[in-house]
Amino acid sequence: MNSSALTVVLERAAGHQQRFDSSFEKYFAGLGGDLNGARLGRFTPRCLELLAELSLRGGKRVRVALLHEAARLVTEEEVPGLLEAALSLELLHSHALILDDIIDDSPLRRGGPSTLYACRADLPENPQAALGLAMMVGDLAGFLALRVLFHADLPADRKQALLDVQLGVTTDTVIGQILDLERDVVSSEDDGLLETVCEYKTSRYSILAPLRLGLLAAGEDLAEHEESLHRYAALAGVSGQMRDDYLDLFGDPDVTGKPLGADLRAGRLTYLVRDLLAATDAEEHDTIRAGLGSPECTPQAIDRIRDIAYRHDVHERLQSAIDRYAEAAAAEAASWRRHWREDAVAVFEQLPVWNTRRTK
Amino acid sequence: MNSSALTVVLERAAGHQQRFDSSFEKYFAGLGGDLNGARLGRFTPRCLELLAELSLRGGKRVRVALLHEAARLVTEEEVPGLLEAALSLELLHSHALILDDIIDDSPLRRGGPSTLYACRADLPENPQAALGLAMMVGDLAGFLALRVLFHADLPADRKQALLDVQLGVTTDTVIGQILDLERDVVSSEDDGLLETVCEYKTSRYSILAPLRLGLLAAGEDLAEHEESLHRYAALAGVSGQMRDDYLDLFGDPDVTGKPLGADLRAGRLTYLVRDLLAATDAEEHDTIRAGLGSPECTPQAIDRIRDIAYRHDVHERLQSAIDRYAEAAAAEAASWRRHWREDAVAVFEQLPVWNTRRTK
Repeated sequence: MNSSALTVVLERAAGHQQRFDSSFEKYFAGLGGDLNGARLGRFTPRCLELLAELSLRGGKRVRVALLHEAARLVTEEEVPGLLEAALSLELLHSHALILDDIIDDSPLRRGGPSTLYACRADLPENPQAALGLAMMVGDLAGFLALRVLFHADLPADRKQALLDVQLGVTTDTVIGQILDLERDVVSSEDDGLLETVCEYKTSRYSILAPLRLGLLAAGEDLAEHEESLHRYAALAGVSGQMRDDYLDLFGDPDVTGKPLGADLRAGRLTYLVRDLLAATDAEEHDTIRAGLGSPECTPQAIDRIRDIAYRHDVHERLQSAIDRYAEAAAAEAASWRRHWREDAVAVFEQLPVWNTRRTK
Repeated sequence: MNSSALTVVLERAAGHQQRFDSSFEKYFAGLGGDLNGARLGRFTPRCLELLAELSLRGGKRVRVALLHEAARLVTEEEVPGLLEAALSLELLHSHALILDDIIDDSPLRRGGPSTLYACRADLPENPQAALGLAMMVGDLAGFLALRVLFHADLPADRKQALLDVQLGVTTDTVIGQILDLERDVVSSEDDGLLETVCEYKTSRYSILAPLRLGLLAAGEDLAEHEESLHRYAALAGVSGQMRDDYLDLFGDPDVTGKPLGADLRAGRLTYLVRDLLAATDAEEHDTIRAGLGSPECTPQAIDRIRDIAYRHDVHERLQSAIDRYAEAAAAEAASWRRHWREDAVAVFEQLPVWNTRRTK
């Protein structure tokens, strides 16, 4: 892979992001009127505002880029339904983030307050109502994700195919979240469970869904491609999840927008923790286990765990695995040259490679 | 209204309920296999079990009866899609109940543990994970409600029309819940807000949606009937909500399956509380306000509030209002004789009247 090819890909991705962000703003600007059949009081507009704030506050929009590039695997022409599919993907992502932050009691998201903490700041004397409002913001995001796609101006069979993907994604994502809770609660270091969580919580909705939506919107029949798409999504998904895990301990909080060691504090048995426990001795295990899942896990405790990780080259081993999975994903994408358009194939080759060095 | 007409209606409703309950059981029996693409661990099957338990544990299935009778307004023939519409309505109801009980921290529902408390019993040492699992059970119910309707074997335009109703219901229900929180948090006795909550949280999804779904499934064009359907739903909805409020203080906990005064303890500004505050003096206000929204609101405090209510004939005044709204709803239904089938019109006439004396 050469760096000029990567530059082209990143410029294309930035273009998708910019166009989408402007459409996403317009979507929220029209939403209040769309839902407002009656007097909606003060809280409903505030909930819509919180959803818009979180949704518009950054995010890399990788799903949106994958979606548009998937359509370009098939055609250079403009493809109807892509905007609604993109809105649907990002609303469903907001839904997942809002619920994640409630479950983890996380104060921060994308460099600002999580929806739960924003609601608590609104209602300092009523934490239970704040929880309820945050849940409703998340709930609304999930249903709006389906509604926006449903209202796309598309032929019935095309729309049916796109909705089918997104309805599958909604239940997959719930199952991914449940598996994630199970992994943390039962403290399972079972590798199979880690892979399954990653598949349901990351690969299917962040990679496979945009790919399938883009191809279907462009009129492609997926039957003969499903296996290869699944392989690509699984490989790129694991690589991406590992990079997330890496950044949790070795990243720069000013860049990621999240405090260091948030996963450790939440007791997450991530790929990083798996590698860490595999590389260390009994005494070091005690230090790691003492921090894991403890709300009193201080920045100093995180520093100690990071020192242990560096001492045992855990960062290098994890980075090697990230690279390996990304290369396998890129090789899978390269096989698409036989039937799909070169410029978009190149994007799917480069994106996993870019992911291996991303800083947020 | 004579009592033999009511008997016929109740027998028909009981028939709908029985047939539906048996289909609902079959639906849940097949659900695990439907979702199980991979290893789903232990928690996912448990979440599906909790959803099935709550969904199958009683409930009057009034929505299901309204749905089937709405189709019979148009035709005696079997109508495709009614089963899926019924499953969709009841799953969405489960969704609302599960989230309600999280927001209110309610231990009981339908004479058994709420989903939140069932999860807490499963994970006594991890209340945060229990909250997360309960949220996921609720989330799953909401998405499955749309998925089951989406997978109905119906012509595309018919399915589109049914999905449009249910997608509207999902966002209406969220807005109803937000308005409900607003009413309780800002302690508003504003009558307009009370009516709007009732419209969004009860009438639209419990009455209007089944009516519209049944008529649409039977092939009816709704355009010229919307106003009358809305009027019927609003009148019957207020009457039903008032009866719920009535039962909270004057009902029999062994029959309702809920402890007496749950709304009062939760600080709900219901129709009952509105009447209670309007009928009482400053000193009595203090007693009522002391109980309202206080978790320490004891059974004795509830008894005192009930005595005050009886002394001022609040129960009689509320019951009169329940009757008045029910009669107006029945009169609206009677006007449907001009264009719809007699036996089903009679059901819509009788149901609001039955509601005025229901005990759970």
